[in-house]
Amino acid sequence: MFSIKMRSSKGGINGLNGKHISGAERIVGSDEVESTVLSMLRRARSHERGQADFINIKITEFGEDSAVRIPLLPVYEKHSGSADEGRKIAAEELIRIGVSEKAVKSGLAALEQLSDSMRGAMLLDAQSGQRLDNFGERGIRCSNMDVADANAYIQRMSSLGLSGIHAREALVLASKVASANGTAAELCWSDDPNYVTGYVASPQFGYCRINIMKEMGDPVGGRIFFVKPNTDLPSYIDYLQNQIVLVKV
Amino acid sequence: MFSIKMRSSKGGINGLNGKHISGAERIVGSDEVESTVLSMLRRARSHERGQADFINIKITEFGEDSAVRIPLLPVYEKHSGSADEGRKIAAEELIRIGVSEKAVKSGLAALEQLSDSMRGAMLLDAQSGQRLDNFGERGIRCSNMDVADANAYIQRMSSLGLSGIHAREALVLASKVASANGTAAELCWSDDPNYVTGYVASPQFGYCRINIMKEMGDPVGGRIFFVKPNTDLPSYIDYLQNQIVLVKV
Repeated sequence: MFSIKMRSSKGGINGLNGKHISGAERIVGSDEVESTVLSMLRRARSHERGQADFINIKITEFGEDSAVRIPLLPVYEKHSGSADEGRKIAAEELIRIGVSEKAVKSGLAALEQLSDSMRGAMLLDAQSGQRLDNFGERGIRCSNMDVADANAYIQRMSSLGLSGIHAREALVLASKVASANGTAAELCWSDDPNYVTGYVASPQFGYCRINIMKEMGDPVGGRIFFVKPNTDLPSYIDYLQNQIVLVKV
Repeated sequence: MFSIKMRSSKGGINGLNGKHISGAERIVGSDEVESTVLSMLRRARSHERGQADFINIKITEFGEDSAVRIPLLPVYEKHSGSADEGRKIAAEELIRIGVSEKAVKSGLAALEQLSDSMRGAMLLDAQSGQRLDNFGERGIRCSNMDVADANAYIQRMSSLGLSGIHAREALVLASKVASANGTAAELCWSDDPNYVTGYVASPQFGYCRINIMKEMGDPVGGRIFFVKPNTDLPSYIDYLQNQIVLVKV
């Protein structure tokens, strides 16, 4: 199997210090490597955030036995009429999951204070609300995951009425995050200015899609992992970043 | 215009410490980006040195005015019947160019002592024969160059009877090296076990192709740039590594 990762940016020098345009990753069989690379290339060169002037594509082969298989999170939805209402719904849902009110407030404030999108996630203590990682504006990248069977997954998504690439990628990521030993909940909205839907996810209840969580046109998105107190952080972070995970439908 | 660079390896971890399989770079217009990426991908996955398990492809856009245009070196050939004879011919040619006998000897010895291929070149003083760079077994990578017009170049190459990809890439690299302020001469043979041809190149006489310079099956290749005494090394190295150069036929 092959891990294929793409990252792209604009305005930097040799890919450094530019504005992040898009990133993607897939885990595919040998016969899908070329088509996956091409589709990532096209995505980077025609993204809503701008046209990348730097694109890096990394292809790594690995043995199938180094992958962990986990189930896809169940999906449910909550309807919001505005960004404000969506964030209120998210807060209520996080509290229902067991995140403290204090941690929910600092999480929402942290996302609202971002001036640029984060490529990764902030780790906040689910009780105290304190930031746990020292990854700054980059955040922790949850990486090395994909669906085990892309066709089965697309069918499932379309039976749920979710056909877009954002939901498709978010649900896979959220499933890996929820499977990590220590995750209480996740809160996310997208950096795509044309995509206002966000979600709250948790191991208990699954993936709660909230249809409006930011203003249309807003290019700043971010992600928070609420972590249970006394979690072994180094191994938690290592699992999120490095463990190859295939999500089964 | 777009610079596209590929490097691939086998047996490392995340692309580090593996065996180098192949590398390539092209400078192309927007409409050739996809086909160039695909052809590099195929090359890395079906190389004589093995099948890469790690491939990195980097695509960088740049303004056409940041490129320097230089002429293609003229090509001439010397015939050798064996690897030994080819290296003797190379030595004679280097001495005719003005490289000292001492430097020629240390250059040939340095290439012959390699146990693995170098991705870059050793810099040797053209008089003393001493190694000038501190890039070790990696060497200095001459990079960021291509032909200005690929079709015109392929036509020229085929009119010279040179159709293979090795000669095509070597002649472009040798043209850039010869255009650098400070180059006395270059000596090279390939890391491809099935390609025994090598060359000596110089700003004075051009590109001297020598049909046999190593034993068939030998997977170790390397490159030496003989540098004139009193050359400003940092700017010499910067030109070789970073200046975008388009070679005109």
